[in-house]
Amino acid sequence: MQTLQEKASQWSGVDTADAFAIDDTSLFQKLGLQTFINLSTNFYTRVYDDEEEEWFRSIFSNSKKEEAIQNQYEFFVQRMGGPPLYSQRKGHPALIARHRPFPVTHQAAERWLYHMEKALESTPDIDADSRVKMMNFFRHTAFFLVAGDELKTQKQQLPCKHAASKPAES
Amino acid sequence: MQTLQEKASQWSGVDTADAFAIDDTSLFQKLGLQTFINLSTNFYTRVYDDEEEEWFRSIFSNSKKEEAIQNQYEFFVQRMGGPPLYSQRKGHPALIARHRPFPVTHQAAERWLYHMEKALESTPDIDADSRVKMMNFFRHTAFFLVAGDELKTQKQQLPCKHAASKPAES
Repeated sequence: MQTLQEKASQWSGVDTADAFAIDDTSLFQKLGLQTFINLSTNFYTRVYDDEEEEWFRSIFSNSKKEEAIQNQYEFFVQRMGGPPLYSQRKGHPALIARHRPFPVTHQAAERWLYHMEKALESTPDIDADSRVKMMNFFRHTAFFLVAGDELKTQKQQLPCKHAASKPAES
Repeated sequence: MQTLQEKASQWSGVDTADAFAIDDTSLFQKLGLQTFINLSTNFYTRVYDDEEEEWFRSIFSNSKKEEAIQNQYEFFVQRMGGPPLYSQRKGHPALIARHRPFPVTHQAAERWLYHMEKALESTPDIDADSRVKMMNFFRHTAFFLVAGDELKTQKQQLPCKHAASKPAES
């Protein structure tokens, strides 16, 4: 059975070493807090305005834009060498569990990455090397979450199969 | 609705600031890799030998002891200021999702913490201040995982209720 990590690498085309090259240096020290805030603001401004792919925008319709921005940049800052802003406010990232309410499909991962790539390009102060490192991390992580989303379906089926095999059926 | 973090704080009795006081300094720099390896070895030696509470030991019966030790100390090292050993090998910690196969009950959390406290006490080189910080982190995290375990049950019920309301029943 493939692990989460193996699925993430296969589907994203990014191997683990490249995905976690963000840990080679502190991107937080290099880029600073404001750049991360700008990146997440650019990203969610695109997402909440996504009129081409209404299904993608609708995934976020129950979340407040300001909160989505803060959750994202605090996690990025914490994961990329900065202070643990996310955990101090919300606890462990628990990435897969916190994405449970959302349908994290292959298609959704690609749309997320499309917007993130555009957001990176439109955020001043993010140099080309940092952009490549971040995109590798994001791409691997997006498909890690797709792999995590499948756990949800596996688990759901168990009790139902069990229920269906009750003698009441015969 | 209570968040994961709020449940963790309430059930553990440890507030967020105390739980994440592990981030005030680098415990990895202070204690070194070998101390973390020793701690996890002590911990799992206790767990796999737990004859008083057979139900607790049985939770680990499908996992190899050596692997359990490595997963644990690599995560601790990464989370407490050391190199990201865990992610380089296995990807994001995704703590809640990776605990899915296990029944993380209040009782299991308490037994886990009981063994961890004994393991900390029996690991040389862990000073009193580090021990308090680590126990606060562990206690909060254990109940964060209990809160995460409840998500599992919520999700399982959904499709079954749906199935039960099919017209075939009438």
